[in-house]
Order: sequence, then structure tokens, then C-alpha cells
Amino acid sequence: MTLLDSLRTPEDLKRLPADKLPQLAAEIREFLVTEVSRTGGHLGPNLGVVELTMALHRVFDSPRDPILFDTGHQSYVHKLFTGRQDFSGLRTRNGLSGYPSRAESEHDFIENSHASTVLSYADGLAKANVIQRRADRSVVAVIGDGALTGGMAWEALNNIAAGSDRRVVIVVNDNGRSYSPTTGGLADHLASLRMTQGYEQALELAKTALNRAPVVGQPLYEALHGLKKGLKDAIQPQMMFEDLGLKYLGPIDGHDEQTVEKALRRARDFGGPVIVHCLTQKGKGHAPAENHEEDQFHAIGAAKPAPSAGEKPAPAPQKWTKVFSEEIVALGAERSDIVGITAAMLHPTGLAPFAEAYPDRCFDVGIAEQHAATSATGLAMGGLHPVMAVYATFLNRCFDQVLMDAALHRQGVTLCLDRSGVTGPDGASHHGMWDLSILQVVPGLRLAVPRDAPRLREELREAVAVEDAPTVLRYPTGAVGPEIEAVERLGTMDVLRRGARDEAAEEDSAGAAEDLLLVAVGPMAQTCCEVADRMADQGIGVTVVDPRWVKPLDPALVHEAARHRVVAVVEDNGRVGAVGDAVARTLRDADLDVPVRTFGIEQEFLHHAKRDDILAELGLTPQSLARKLTETVSRQAETADEEPASK
Amino acid sequence: MTLLDSLRTPEDLKRLPADKLPQLAAEIREFLVTEVSRTGGHLGPNLGVVELTMALHRVFDSPRDPILFDTGHQSYVHKLFTGRQDFSGLRTRNGLSGYPSRAESEHDFIENSHASTVLSYADGLAKANVIQRRADRSVVAVIGDGALTGGMAWEALNNIAAGSDRRVVIVVNDNGRSYSPTTGGLADHLASLRMTQGYEQALELAKTALNRAPVVGQPLYEALHGLKKGLKDAIQPQMMFEDLGLKYLGPIDGHDEQTVEKALRRARDFGGPVIVHCLTQKGKGHAPAENHEEDQFHAIGAAKPAPSAGEKPAPAPQKWTKVFSEEIVALGAERSDIVGITAAMLHPTGLAPFAEAYPDRCFDVGIAEQHAATSATGLAMGGLHPVMAVYATFLNRCFDQVLMDAALHRQGVTLCLDRSGVTGPDGASHHGMWDLSILQVVPGLRLAVPRDAPRLREELREAVAVEDAPTVLRYPTGAVGPEIEAVERLGTMDVLRRGARDEAAEEDSAGAAEDLLLVAVGPMAQTCCEVADRMADQGIGVTVVDPRWVKPLDPALVHEAARHRVVAVVEDNGRVGAVGDAVARTLRDADLDVPVRTFGIEQEFLHHAKRDDILAELGLTPQSLARKLTETVSRQAETADEEPASK
Repeated sequence: MTLLDSLRTPEDLKRLPADKLPQLAAEIREFLVTEVSRTGGHLGPNLGVVELTMALHRVFDSPRDPILFDTGHQSYVHKLFTGRQDFSGLRTRNGLSGYPSRAESEHDFIENSHASTVLSYADGLAKANVIQRRADRSVVAVIGDGALTGGMAWEALNNIAAGSDRRVVIVVNDNGRSYSPTTGGLADHLASLRMTQGYEQALELAKTALNRAPVVGQPLYEALHGLKKGLKDAIQPQMMFEDLGLKYLGPIDGHDEQTVEKALRRARDFGGPVIVHCLTQKGKGHAPAENHEEDQFHAIGAAKPAPSAGEKPAPAPQKWTKVFSEEIVALGAERSDIVGITAAMLHPTGLAPFAEAYPDRCFDVGIAEQHAATSATGLAMGGLHPVMAVYATFLNRCFDQVLMDAALHRQGVTLCLDRSGVTGPDGASHHGMWDLSILQVVPGLRLAVPRDAPRLREELREAVAVEDAPTVLRYPTGAVGPEIEAVERLGTMDVLRRGARDEAAEEDSAGAAEDLLLVAVGPMAQTCCEVADRMADQGIGVTVVDPRWVKPLDPALVHEAARHRVVAVVEDNGRVGAVGDAVARTLRDADLDVPVRTFGIEQEFLHHAKRDDILAELGLTPQSLARKLTETVSRQAETADEEPASK
Repeated sequence: MTLLDSLRTPEDLKRLPADKLPQLAAEIREFLVTEVSRTGGHLGPNLGVVELTMALHRVFDSPRDPILFDTGHQSYVHKLFTGRQDFSGLRTRNGLSGYPSRAESEHDFIENSHASTVLSYADGLAKANVIQRRADRSVVAVIGDGALTGGMAWEALNNIAAGSDRRVVIVVNDNGRSYSPTTGGLADHLASLRMTQGYEQALELAKTALNRAPVVGQPLYEALHGLKKGLKDAIQPQMMFEDLGLKYLGPIDGHDEQTVEKALRRARDFGGPVIVHCLTQKGKGHAPAENHEEDQFHAIGAAKPAPSAGEKPAPAPQKWTKVFSEEIVALGAERSDIVGITAAMLHPTGLAPFAEAYPDRCFDVGIAEQHAATSATGLAMGGLHPVMAVYATFLNRCFDQVLMDAALHRQGVTLCLDRSGVTGPDGASHHGMWDLSILQVVPGLRLAVPRDAPRLREELREAVAVEDAPTVLRYPTGAVGPEIEAVERLGTMDVLRRGARDEAAEEDSAGAAEDLLLVAVGPMAQTCCEVADRMADQGIGVTVVDPRWVKPLDPALVHEAARHRVVAVVEDNGRVGAVGDAVARTLRDADLDVPVRTFGIEQEFLHHAKRDDILAELGLTPQSLARKLTETVSRQAETADEEPASK
């Protein structure tokens, strides 16, 4: 039996003698590498917090003292200490979540994986402790150095520091970089030093490097790392936090468990808000991760079985992100006014090749979506055309800025939303199921949903040609499906299939081709074409259109709808307020009272599971859609044969 | 001819000898007091920036050097210098906007009045200057000290400081307080000292006060004012900004025009990002404003004609804000777990009496809506029930937090949205026309729209009784209309009128009572009842219902709809994705294909005008609605008599 096997609760961990902890750490790292390599998941971040998480659970009394993790992907070790050691189903339907989960454990508090929020929760929980006279309890918030660039974190620091009686322990887990290093900055330089030279020598080398490297990086980052203050202050970068009125401890070696424990005990006993600055190394203790230059195995996929001897591996399918990446680089060569913006997602959004090609025209603003959107508006006012690449779910962070800055001022800003729709195993706060709804309300904004790779390229070009309004493209994660040719273009809309009237065999009465108009939003086009095939087999004529631009809808859609008995919309977004509702409203406003049915994601927080499983569960498969729509069309045909009921 | 009359362009101002400027400043103050007292508007802030604005236009070359105003309500003096001296129609349909307006002048850049955005625009414009090799141009951003507490401002500062070649001049217009002073903090103390002792002696007195007053205010505020650093640093509070890597000049006397000019010239010639810290006094030079303790005439209403002799003034009508204010104080007495939260809007949202009654249970977090919402979630997790009072338009700032923090974690947080719907003369970014749409997508969230004062009290009580989901109430600005009694309650829904079947005189055929179901959202109930009266005169039976809770809709609504030939929804929100769309979707999902018509605000940015004028223009009057709905009902009756067209 290993030490790890013997741990059932945090109390078990507390009882372990300190001299056993290095062995435990080694067991945990072996466990993580083995398990996560098999299932996929956030390996690097968790390898980096093994000792820190041990110390947290040995010093604090969870859940009485809540331990809160910002973004939450670094909570695997926390799970191991709180009774969750079966990682076999990690990130699958019936297995453990890859994030904290309130349903899993009373030790988990925050399920939201959007960055920079944790300090605000901590502020609220600590205020609640004061009001309810639970003076001895602490609230612990673990936040990465990158997340401190988010404005929300600063709002919270300002408020936390205001309450000297609130016991908040802020642990800055500083692994020297956030998701992606700041392009060209000293942050990048320092990070690469750490990576290549090994953690143990990093601080020493960094000191030497300081006097050589130009100071051009992110100032908050530099203040955090004391970079502007020279050698002595580089290991005492407390000034900025103490300016804010926060007690500061550190920096400490986050892989020296006993040192971390000592600092946390001091922080706990201080009785007011305090920052503990821990230096850690992402991927620590696993050589392939430590040496992986790009992101130290931040998140890895599940291991795939090796192809058998002689078998030729299938070519990797083209990914949506890659198509965007190639096209924006091409556009950058054609138009010198195109500039790129990202909020700490240079690589994941595919903007990195653009940044390499045009380093003066690409800006990584840190985890700061609000600033990104409004800064883009300023760039547009200054005569450029910014393209901001962002995950669909993080668009919610800058809704006000897209509305009141980009749109109100009618500026030509293009947003490219990656990871839209059902994203899969990362859980509720990663699904990009909100954008098609909230963007509907933005006056003047134009919104396109490409169905395949040629359309992504084409619609991106149409988007950056718009000078007087924001434009948005949204596309999912993963592989692009096959190309789907249009049979006809009506305005901005593509007709993908014509019903029975265009078919060689006219199966039924002449009007059958006009049974159903199926409006396919972007990547649902493939599914909709399969629905049409299935329904044609039943003798039902289905027209499939892809609006291409779902806002504004082309007037041709109303004309098409008028020729059909039923209209249905299928989209990969929450059903509420999205394209389905927009189509229905557009028809109503034209006094066209044709029955409409809308299909999309039920408006609930989705659990973690594979994308295809979730779509099947939601009924967004050709089989399920064809069955429901056949019923609807049949019922309408029957009703049309009767006298009107309301007479 | 006055000096002011002689100014047509900023060039005219530049040519004026410096010794004439005090006379010009006096003329401007007289002009502002006279004009704004007549029309209403932001008097105090503009009296505070007379000399500062002069200096800006004498040093910089607008519009080549853009001068950007955060929130924009302090741009009246800027308007006077840029060819706009006819203030007679200020904030009315055909008059000047109360904010910068791109349609009015090439000197205006930002129309959005949401705080803390200006630095991000400046960052974008300055980057555009660098990319396009316009190295000699400066970008000037004027921001209040209060707006620096907004996270977005910190995101921008971090990025601006990163570009040493970008010419951004940040003018901090520090009038010692934002909208409302921090409750109980030193900020408050200092502000009141300034007010009562006069500006000239304020700095001196503040120094003395520092050693007496407890340091419990907002730390960023204090850092800005150097309050924690004692006497010497109180007038040299540059540390924090220089920690961020920003060149700092100040603090300077913002009412000494020549001093401000000198500082701005130094800043302009510095060649990189620089902060100029100006101390100003809101209401400066107008004794009644200077001495007005609450807000120095921040915004004043239009002067009303005095009642003639003997005439008894009508009693002031009850206001929505006041009703909320009274009820939350009463609830606070009954339940010790209720806590208040505001983002620098303690007085305008009516939360101030609650803060006075329960000072330990009310938090003003500064201009920081994101933090407010997530901190509220933390308070709820800690066992309390937070009530966050915020303007409807500023909810957009914390959409992600309401969704991913409050709702995903199923916490009992109540948001009270004041100033919802059409707000009137403050222009596009003040209208609260977005919340009923974007909140629809939030799973589990419950949303109520009270129609009158008793319903606001009742629905607030229902809201704070919900423990496992966020709840939202939204109500408009201004006076509450008369109480509207229900004839029946169905589930959570009130029936306000029954059609002809309930009337003594049954005018027409027996089915006429089932012609139209009119769904009245909140304050539109009065209008809808008048529509029903008008249509009854035409022999059309109209049922009027108020859903009270518009999310989720009560199933009784579907049953009612099934009994009517047409369903219509009337709401004071953007039409897209709001209650109208929700009703239509709910009926579709129940396979009820009754024609639906939805009425609300056209999805456009509204210009500034009076609320009633805007509603009339939008067709949201009893006359207009009755006419349109009569047509729709008649057309449906005709169609029902014919054979179905699609057969």
C-alpha cells in the first residue's frame, strides 16, 4: 500500500510525518503522469502544485477554511487529498470532473474556470465570516500570476485590502507565465530562462539577466517579479502589494513543502488579508513536461493506441483553428492595416503564426478581455482593422465593451470566437453556448457562422471588409467536417439542398418539396443535410439553407420560409435568444405565421462529457431531428386538411 | 461681445493671451450655471474642469491629438471650445447631447458613458499611431479618480505602460471622490473636509487629518492620494504609478490654468506614457454647488416654474427607487442575513438608507461591477443573502459573473436593476434596454418585472426568499404609476383584465372575448390596460396578463394563450431576445402555433430625448399599439374564415 492509498481525508494528510512528504510527492507525481497521460487533462499545472496543495491541506482546515482555486484546473492534487483517487474516468461522463465540482465534494467551492474570479469569492466569504462572527476561520484563494492581470482581480484586491479584519490568505502560484507568455517581453525571456536552465538555477540566472534584457514586458508582471528594481528587490517584490495595503510574504520556493507550510501558518495567524508569493514550476518532476518549451504539458490529450505494424496512420484532419490561423496570416500579407489581438491565448486561438509574421501588429494584452475589446475599438478609430481571437465563452467577459465601445461607435472590429458551441470534457464554463444569443442584441453587429473550411476563409474575408460595424465569426473546436457545396446563393444565404422538386424522382405530390425549410447554422449543416436525406426517404421535401450571416438575416430567408409549411432551425448554441428565436421573430415581424421549431442546446449548464455524446443527449443527431421534424410536418399537413380550430 | 462668444475653434482659444483666461473661465462658469440650471444636466463636474479643459485645448491639437473623456459628462466645456455654444436644447431631441457625440463634432471620439473605458481606447489609438508612423501625435485620456477603481482601467494601465514609445497622456481628474464616497472610509472624511473648508485649504487640512483618521477606506484610493505614506508623500503619491512603470507628474492644482498647461506640455513632450494628476473641485466657482454636501450638483434637473400664488403644489409622486429603498430597509430589519452591495451607486440606487441602518451589512465596492457580482456570490456561499443594487445598463459589465459565478453555483443572490428600459436624456449608453434579453440565457436565474409599487415590494420579498438561484428585479427611473389590481392570480401570473366575456355588455359573438391575449411586462401594464379599453370599444375581447415573473414563465401562460386567437407581448426593453421572444418560444415548444406579435424598443442605439417622446416614437403608446393589434386580430379572423393557404 502506498502512502497515497492511505489518505482518505485531509486529516490523514495532517497526521503524516513531515519526513514522509517527499515520498508522497513522488507517488502523487507518478500517479498524475500515469493517469492523466491515459485520460488527457491538465497535467503540467497539477505537477506544479503538489507540495503547495499538501501544505494548504496540512495548515488549513478544509472545508471550514475554504480553499478556492482560480480557474480550477490545478485541483487534481486537492482531489486526491479529499477522498477522490479514482481518476480512471477523469473528464468523462461518469468520472471525475477536471475542475472542482460541488457535486463531488464539500471541499470544492468554485466550478467556474474563467480566470481572475477567485479573489472576489474570497472577499465575499471573508465578509460573511466577519458578519457571522466566525472570526477564527480563514479563506484561502490560490491564483496564478497570469490571472492577476485581469481587471477583476485588481477590483478584488482593492476591496480585500480594505478590510483589515478579514482573514483572506491569497496564494499567488507564480510559475513565471500564464497560458502563453507575453510576446517579446521580458516575461518571455525569463520564462525561457527558467525552462532551459532548470528551476533550481532560475532565480540566480534571472538576476544576472535583469541587467542585460530590455524592460519591455508587462509592467504588472514585472512589478510582481520585482524586475524593475534590480537585483536586491528581485527576490523581495513586495512593494506593489504593500502599496495596496496588503501584507506580503515571499517569494518562497513552492516546491519546498516545509517552507510553504511555514509561510501559510504565518499568513493564517496574521489575522488579516495577506499575500503569499510562491514560485513554482509547471510540469515539475516530469522531465518531458519540464522540457516542453511551449506550455509544459499545460493540457494534454488522451494517449492514442499506436498504429499496428505496416498500417499507415490516417492523415490528421484539418482543424478549425488552423484554418483561421492560415487565413489571417494570408490576410496580414495582403493588408497592412490588419492587426491581431489576444487575451493571453496567442497559441490556442491560432494567432501565434500571425504574431510571428507581423510582430509589430499583434498584441497579447494578458487575461484582460475587456481591455482587448475596447483597445481594439481604439485601434479601429485609429485607422486599423483589428482581429481579436478569443474563446467563445470568454466573450461574455467583454460583452459591455463589444456593445458600448465597438458597436455604439460603429467601428470595424472583427472578433473570431474559437471553441464555440459544445466543447466537451472541460465542463460547464468552457462550453461556448452563449455568444449567438447575447450578440443578437448588439445593434449593427454582423455575425457569421462558417459551415466548413472554405466558408471560414470566405466569411473572414467578408468580415474584415466591413468598416463601419463590428463583425463576429464563430467556429467550434476540433476537426472541420467535409466541404459542403451550395446549389444556389440567395443574397448572403446559401441553399444547400432543394427538396423533391429538384430531385430526379418526384416522389409525391407536387407540393411536397415545400414541406420543410431547414435553417442550418454553421457546422450543423452536415447534420441538417443528413436530416434532409432521411426525410426525403419518407417522401418529405426538405430545403436546407445556410444563412452564412445569421445577423442580419437575409430577406431571402423570409421569401423561402413563405414557400414552406414548416420552418426549423438547428444550431450549436443555447436555444434561448439565439438564431432560432431570431428567425422566428423575423418571420413574425413579416406577418408570416408559419410554424417554426428551433433546436439547439438546452439552456442548462452542461456537465463534462465528449462532444458527440452531449450532442446525442441533446437530440442534435440526424436520427433524432428527422424523427421530430417528420412528426411536426405530418401534424401540420393534417391540420391544414382540417377546418381551422379557432373558428 | 464676451470672450466666450469670440471662440469658434480651439485655435481661437490658443490665440487668447494667458492674462485673459481668468475672465474666460468666469464667463464659462456663468454660462454653465445659467444654461444648465435651465435645461438640467451635469453641472458640478463641468464647473470642475473649466481650467483643465482650457489647458488641454491650448496644449494639444484636437482632433489630431484626440482628447478622450471617460464617462463624458464632463465634456460641456470641451463643447464650448469646439464650436458648440448653443446649449438651449441640451439633452433634448434636437439639441446638444449631454455627452460627446461623434455626429456633433470631429473633436468627439467616445460616446459611451460607462466608466473606466477611456484608457483602453487611448491604448488602441496610440498603438495605431505607432503602427502608422504618426510619431508626433499624442492621445489624451481624461479619467476621474473614482474610475480608476474599475478593473478595466487597471488592465489598460498595465498595457499602456508596456509601450514606452506610445504617446499617451493620462490626466487623472481627481476631485477627491467618485459618484459616491466610500462609506465610512477616509475617502469620505477627506472629501467632506474639502467641501466644508474650501478647496484652497484642503490639502493642508488633509495632511493634518491624516494623522487622526483611521485608515479604513479603499486602498487604491489611498494610494492615489498618498494617504498611507504620511505627510511628505501625501503630495507626492507617485509611487504606485511608477511601480507600474508610468511616468508621473503631480499632483497639480487643476484650477491654476498656467500650471496645468505647463504640466501638460511636459507630458506631451515626454514621448511616452505619462500620468498627470490634477486636483480639482467639483462645482468650483458656484457657491451653491461647492457647498452641496451630497454631490456638488453632480447632475441637476431642469428648473421648474414656481407655483403661482395660492396654488398648492402637487405632492411629489412616489419614485421606484424610493419604494425599493424603503422595502430593503424593512427587510434588513426582519432578516439579519440580508446584505447590500453597490458599485459606487449607494445614493442613486436607493441603498444609502440601508447602509445607514446596517453599516456592517452594506458594501460599496467602487466602480467594480464584476467584483460586486462575484463577491455577492461569495457572501451567499457564506450563508448570507446579498442584494446588489445597480443600474440596468451597468449589469452588462458583470454578465459573465452573474452567469458563471452566481448562477452556475446556484447561489441566492438578488440583483435590483434601477433605471431599466428607456431612461431618457442621458443617451444611448444609459438606456437599460439590454437586461431582459441577456438575462434570459442564464440557467436557473429568475427574473421579475414589477408593474407598480405593491408588486415591487412583493416581488422583492419573493426574490430574497429564493436560496438556490440568482433572482433579478428590474424597474425604471422616475415615478411609479397608479396601482393596478389583479382580477385573478394564475400560478405566478396576474390577470389584470378579462375580455368581453367578463364585461356586462357582450358586444359581439361569444368567442370575441378570446381574440387577444396581451402580455404586459411590468410598467407597460398601464399602457396595455388602455390598449384593452380601446380595443374593447371596437368589440375586440382582450385579456391582459402580467406574468410578474417573466423567467421562468408560468405554464398558465400557455393555457391562456391556447384560448386566444392572437398573443401579443409589450415590454420596455430591446425587442431582440427579450420577453416577447421567450413567450413565442414557450408557445412553439408546446406545439402551440398561435400568431404572436412582440412590441418593445427597436434594437438600435437610441438618441437622447425625453422618455415619453421616445416611447411615442417607438410606437409604445396605447393608440399605436391598439391600432396595430386591431389590424392583426382582424387579419387573423379573416384568415380563419378562409381555407388554409398552404393546402
